[in-house]
Amino acid sequence: MSKNEPTDKLAILRHSTSHVLAAAVLEMFPEAKFGIGPAIENGFYYDFDLPRTLIPEDLPILEEKMRRIISENHTFEQADISAEKAREDFEKLGQVYKVELINDLSEAGNETVSIYKSGHFVDLCSGPHLDSTGEIPADGFKLTKISGAYWRGNEKDKQLQRIYSVAFANKKELEEYLHMMEEAEKRDHRKLGKELDLFVFSDIVGKGLPMLTPKGTVIRKELEKFVLEEETKRGYQHVVTPLLAKVELYKKSGHYPYYKDTMYPVMKVDEEELILRPMTCPHHFELFKSHLRSYKELPLRIAEISPQFRYEKSGELSGLTRVRMFCLADAHIICSKEQAEAEIINVLDLIDHANMIFGLKKGEDYRYRLSLGDRSDEKKYYKDDDAWEKAEALLRKVLTDLDTPFQEAENEAAFYGPKIDVQIKKVNGQEETAFTVQYDFVMPKRFDLQYIDKDGKEKEPIVIHRSSIGCFERTMAFLIEHYAGAFPVWLSPVQAIVIPISEEKFGEYAKGVAEKMKAAGIRVELEDSSESLGKRIREAEKQKIPYMLVVGEKEMQSNSVAVRKRNDKEQKVMPVDDFIASIKKEIKEKK
Amino acid sequence: MSKNEPTDKLAILRHSTSHVLAAAVLEMFPEAKFGIGPAIENGFYYDFDLPRTLIPEDLPILEEKMRRIISENHTFEQADISAEKAREDFEKLGQVYKVELINDLSEAGNETVSIYKSGHFVDLCSGPHLDSTGEIPADGFKLTKISGAYWRGNEKDKQLQRIYSVAFANKKELEEYLHMMEEAEKRDHRKLGKELDLFVFSDIVGKGLPMLTPKGTVIRKELEKFVLEEETKRGYQHVVTPLLAKVELYKKSGHYPYYKDTMYPVMKVDEEELILRPMTCPHHFELFKSHLRSYKELPLRIAEISPQFRYEKSGELSGLTRVRMFCLADAHIICSKEQAEAEIINVLDLIDHANMIFGLKKGEDYRYRLSLGDRSDEKKYYKDDDAWEKAEALLRKVLTDLDTPFQEAENEAAFYGPKIDVQIKKVNGQEETAFTVQYDFVMPKRFDLQYIDKDGKEKEPIVIHRSSIGCFERTMAFLIEHYAGAFPVWLSPVQAIVIPISEEKFGEYAKGVAEKMKAAGIRVELEDSSESLGKRIREAEKQKIPYMLVVGEKEMQSNSVAVRKRNDKEQKVMPVDDFIASIKKEIKEKK
Repeated sequence: MSKNEPTDKLAILRHSTSHVLAAAVLEMFPEAKFGIGPAIENGFYYDFDLPRTLIPEDLPILEEKMRRIISENHTFEQADISAEKAREDFEKLGQVYKVELINDLSEAGNETVSIYKSGHFVDLCSGPHLDSTGEIPADGFKLTKISGAYWRGNEKDKQLQRIYSVAFANKKELEEYLHMMEEAEKRDHRKLGKELDLFVFSDIVGKGLPMLTPKGTVIRKELEKFVLEEETKRGYQHVVTPLLAKVELYKKSGHYPYYKDTMYPVMKVDEEELILRPMTCPHHFELFKSHLRSYKELPLRIAEISPQFRYEKSGELSGLTRVRMFCLADAHIICSKEQAEAEIINVLDLIDHANMIFGLKKGEDYRYRLSLGDRSDEKKYYKDDDAWEKAEALLRKVLTDLDTPFQEAENEAAFYGPKIDVQIKKVNGQEETAFTVQYDFVMPKRFDLQYIDKDGKEKEPIVIHRSSIGCFERTMAFLIEHYAGAFPVWLSPVQAIVIPISEEKFGEYAKGVAEKMKAAGIRVELEDSSESLGKRIREAEKQKIPYMLVVGEKEMQSNSVAVRKRNDKEQKVMPVDDFIASIKKEIKEKK
Repeated sequence: MSKNEPTDKLAILRHSTSHVLAAAVLEMFPEAKFGIGPAIENGFYYDFDLPRTLIPEDLPILEEKMRRIISENHTFEQADISAEKAREDFEKLGQVYKVELINDLSEAGNETVSIYKSGHFVDLCSGPHLDSTGEIPADGFKLTKISGAYWRGNEKDKQLQRIYSVAFANKKELEEYLHMMEEAEKRDHRKLGKELDLFVFSDIVGKGLPMLTPKGTVIRKELEKFVLEEETKRGYQHVVTPLLAKVELYKKSGHYPYYKDTMYPVMKVDEEELILRPMTCPHHFELFKSHLRSYKELPLRIAEISPQFRYEKSGELSGLTRVRMFCLADAHIICSKEQAEAEIINVLDLIDHANMIFGLKKGEDYRYRLSLGDRSDEKKYYKDDDAWEKAEALLRKVLTDLDTPFQEAENEAAFYGPKIDVQIKKVNGQEETAFTVQYDFVMPKRFDLQYIDKDGKEKEPIVIHRSSIGCFERTMAFLIEHYAGAFPVWLSPVQAIVIPISEEKFGEYAKGVAEKMKAAGIRVELEDSSESLGKRIREAEKQKIPYMLVVGEKEMQSNSVAVRKRNDKEQKVMPVDDFIASIKKEIKEKK
């Protein structure tokens, strides 16, 4: 078991089940060589070096064997033996990977190592385990996936085969989890993105570089507009700064050593060394420094809808969530130390507001996390104990005063100060850091930021780095899954579709209705194909269009439409003007 | 005289005056060595190799000498002499640059060369010239500038000193021109950009990479909003595509060899070679190809507010007009050949509309130019004579049918087809190509673009590349100069400023007015400093704010404001609500 693994009851169960899997694999392939098999979130995995490639059909066979081993109720027997003896034993078994691990343990000064035996299977393992395999619920696990994994995660080492399993305390919990996964799969933004034609990729454009289609772009532009308007209302001043800069800028900011690995390579042109920006802060600091600043200008809230570039390895790319360029709803608030508390409260209020618009409940769908720095790690964190204490205390005070539930996380801060992370729960139940609010006392020094205070003296401000809705790509991916593609009206690429019962008889009227709505600024489509009415309605439902407006004789006579709401079989006839007023209200209120 | 120089009367006058300048320089510096001295737009220049660096004070002295030489009325005497004799003569005079030119002429097969003599000054020159120096109006020219210039424009050759002069047929024309230049200098967007705090540069960010301040960003975002709304209304579909791509994409499009020199260097990362995009078309083609297209989808008008990257040499950078990354209001219309004419008409209508909004008159402030390709230049233009004929005829027909004045320009087309250039006159009287509308029959082949036509068969569409308002940076620069910084209300960073006559007595009322206006979506500022009223009004005038709202006792009592329009000394008292309604109307109508 690795050191960082949780040692709670469920983790012990999961890790014990991984030994059972290994035993089952050993039965099936006596030549199998074993890597490692830790417990992970929701289950475990085990890595194997096998004589042939596994196929999905192997999994039920292995599950069958595992259930038998469980029913045989083998005891997990632990023993501490000398490293030398362990090496001999595992060498005899041909377990080259275990031998490598034993050698490492020896070199690290361990004279004895821990082994666990259950039935015929022996593993190098520090435990802990259940008492016996019989304690494992035979219907609480499910082997889910086979994938490749390099030995020790090193691309130069051999590729092993990894079997993933989910494992829970009982059948009910397993089923709940599997149901959630099934739902998450249906909502997968990569799948829905294709079905709803929101974004596409092209091999020749490049991996991790999504192209938003017209429909996806509607959502993106609505989000941008929301950010711009809401932030402007709250006193942010938007700017537009260049997407590249001299490398020198990131050396000055101190970002370069921390971000170098994910930054794009330097571009040497003529006399300059330019690089794509991996963040926006240094540009905003240079803008701040473009003229002398007075205390009257503070807090200066510099915001930008800001494209940024970080290079993700191709194996890590995924849909809109892991990409090679992204656009952040970014801002840097430059203010006096005294203004910091109020500004952070304002930022959290903005985040709460945005999340409310997206229908997210605090404490349920998202929560805050206070990320702290380790004073003793001077390599990772800027050395200034006093500043760290004060900043952390301030963030803790804000969260406490707001009476918002939050957790604290050690060793998760930025190098220039502590931060509040916005932790959002995804449809698969996983929590991830969507974006952060950072308190920065380092950059003002590095960039020599100054303002003239009331007393005529130069003072050093602090900087709050923050986002309001995070990165647009990721937020879009999240929202697609959150809404399962059925966006609220204000975000819907097509807000309403007019469907004449008969194209021949009511096509002209339908066209008139659509044109009137379009003139009113509503994103409307006209469905005038010759397909059957039922089929056209089903197609509109598949496209998750919020409103279907069916028009026939009655509607044409009364200048009205039969309104059918998404996921609602009832139709309500209303005058065209009334419907326009009602949908416009809904759009404005972002309901 | 160089071959490409205009040989009209004014050019002859200008070139003759350049000989007089050279004669004056020779008087002042007997050791002077002469480069070349051609006529240029509005005047001429002459390059010299001199024993000392010229200073501005030298110019009036030289002008004085020139006037004396003019009054002495020397004849311009031409002679053809053998190249050998010319070489000997100029070698004797120490004129190394002339000798170099003579050698080139010899090598090119010329046995004789032409020389011109006027007074003591002899020049290697093919003419033509006036009959004598006396024909030059002594008050029609003015030496304007000294600058460095490499011999033959080659950075590795010696740097000479260049004297620029403007020269006209008479004093009146000279004065008109100088007045226009003076006005242009006042309106220079670099100067106004600083005064009005619209954009700034930073050395450590890099040259040619402007940062838009909050005020500059207001203008930019208003322009973006205008483009997005107007184009959407006209059936364009906006998309968002990545700012970089695999180099392969530009090899496929055929752009790479033509644009390589101004493209940023390739970034090699892991398995890919990526490059910043210098244009957007290939991305849009890949988007088009993301699924099978039907004739029903055509014309497909794919638009993007599109950042792009081209590397300009540092010597060519200037304010917002020559930058190292820019953002284009871009679009590619993919349509059938039959739809092309109507689409081009629509595009020109959009451009006329946008120019009308900016207050530009067709034929006066801008005009169209038809740029043609040279069939015989197969290196520069894609070989397909028939397609060129048809495309050029189509563009000519559109321009002729629209009854719009236009000129034709040879050898100015894109490599993939002819184009219509939008030629805009700048405040300095110079005309430049703001952007273009291009007819492209090459890219559809290269990208294998296809659509399924009514008959079920695959057909090849054509592509129209176009912009609506050009590149945002350049358009902003143009508009700053065009409006001399006094933007119409819809574009003004600050639309109104509320000024209480006394901060103490009416400050609260003024604040209430400002808040009410802000809530109505108006960009308003409150001027509540303790400066005198006169000074505050002058400051607002300097900032070119369209409306000053002065409030005192009378206004407070009647819930009104005293409205003072920019550049108008009259004040008109009106109820706050009336003013809000009136300015909102003005903003909406983009007046």
